[in-house]
Amino acid sequence: MPFIKIEITRESVTKEQKQILIKGVTNLITETLNKDPHLTHVVIQEVDLDNWGYAGEQGSVIRERALQKKEK
Amino acid sequence: MPFIKIEITRESVTKEQKQILIKGVTNLITETLNKDPHLTHVVIQEVDLDNWGYAGEQGSVIRERALQKKEK
Amino acid sequence: MPFIKIEITRESVTKEQKQILIKGVTNLITETLNKDPHLTHVVIQEVDLDNWGYAGEQGSVIRERALQKKEK
Amino acid sequence: MPFIKIEITRESVTKEQKQILIKGVTNLITETLNKDPHLTHVVIQEVDLDNWGYAGEQGSVIRERALQKKEK
Amino acid sequence: MPFIKIEITRESVTKEQKQILIKGVTNLITETLNKDPHLTHVVIQEVDLDNWGYAGEQGSVIRERALQKKEK
Amino acid sequence: MPFIKIEITRESVTKEQKQILIKGVTNLITETLNKDPHLTHVVIQEVDLDNWGYAGEQGSVIRERALQKKEK
Repeated sequence: MPFIKIEITRESVTKEQKQILIKGVTNLITETLNKDPHLTHVVIQEVDLDNWGYAGEQGSVIRERALQKKEK
Repeated sequence: MPFIKIEITRESVTKEQKQILIKGVTNLITETLNKDPHLTHVVIQEVDLDNWGYAGEQGSVIRERALQKKEK
Repeated sequence: MPFIKIEITRESVTKEQKQILIKGVTNLITETLNKDPHLTHVVIQEVDLDNWGYAGEQGSVIRERALQKKEK
Repeated sequence: MPFIKIEITRESVTKEQKQILIKGVTNLITETLNKDPHLTHVVIQEVDLDNWGYAGEQGSVIRERALQKKEK
Repeated sequence: MPFIKIEITRESVTKEQKQILIKGVTNLITETLNKDPHLTHVVIQEVDLDNWGYAGEQGSVIRERALQKKEK
Repeated sequence: MPFIKIEITRESVTKEQKQILIKGVTNLITETLNKDPHLTHVVIQEVDLDNWGYAGEQGSVIRERALQKKEK
């Protein structure tokens, strides 16, 4: 009876990419652990870049700095 | 000191239904475990149908197929 | 497709109490939202008193102070 | 390798407040546990007042009653 | 910056199976979403059968009934 | 009404370190967001090194390799 939560930053992930994640994670877990896919749920939670901190900084700040570097 | 998270698909759950869930879960847990309701929090998290996978498929795809079957 | 996580402090909750919680939460949610119980999972997570903080203090410290008060 | 999830009610938390939380939590945890900030992620999850229950009531109902009291 | 939580029932999952899950989920997500594996964390949480409810029943009760059926 | 979950690897974190985390996170959040500490809960969840994956590898494997490097 697996439940999988995937937390990612909200950055235009497409419906097709989500389907690939859901299918792939479900297959991996049901095959590795010999589980019934009908007992397997996957939830994708998208998090705004302002709300995801890495190494003490907001994702939005990190992303902006990376863009400015590229432009130079 | 209970904390309860209810994850459901986002499908027009009304404010009244949410209140019934919050009241009911709080009562059940405080009575069963003899807890103080003022230490009991309930969070409802609604998940888009594209983001909830069941048996390897997106909720939105499952829902659509069910609708098409009905129409036939 | 509901998934419910109940987080409580680890304090000798019995198997029977857990069954009451699981049955009660499942009934409440499937009836209120018209959901299939076979799509409804409930997970109870027990947390050590040292690991649960309330109002800035560890549960174990709060519990001990309450006991000392009683003894006086 | 810490991961911290902060769940709060959605009430106009500013980008600056979020940055203070992310910076502060990351510093606290990396210093207290001697962890690498590049292995430390913080996610802030904002929850609608209708979806947060406290003592069996919706946050939105509690907030409204507090406002009405003030007005009297 | 993905974080993935896999919740499964505690049933003698081996270290090797866990490694397969961690490797597989990390590959799937970093390839599908073009993410850096060094920003990708996976946590496996094992839940006692008494603490996992399905369709209103404890996992331990469901498992026991299945065993009894087999024996007949 | 904040709820904070701190997930870390299980590596002999002391009761005192946990108290510092609980106190520090509670102060930071109640001061930054002007919240009541009596509505603020913090849960620390310790995860076995076999169950935490980083960059596709188990924490226990990463730790062992680091030890072997040191010994050389």
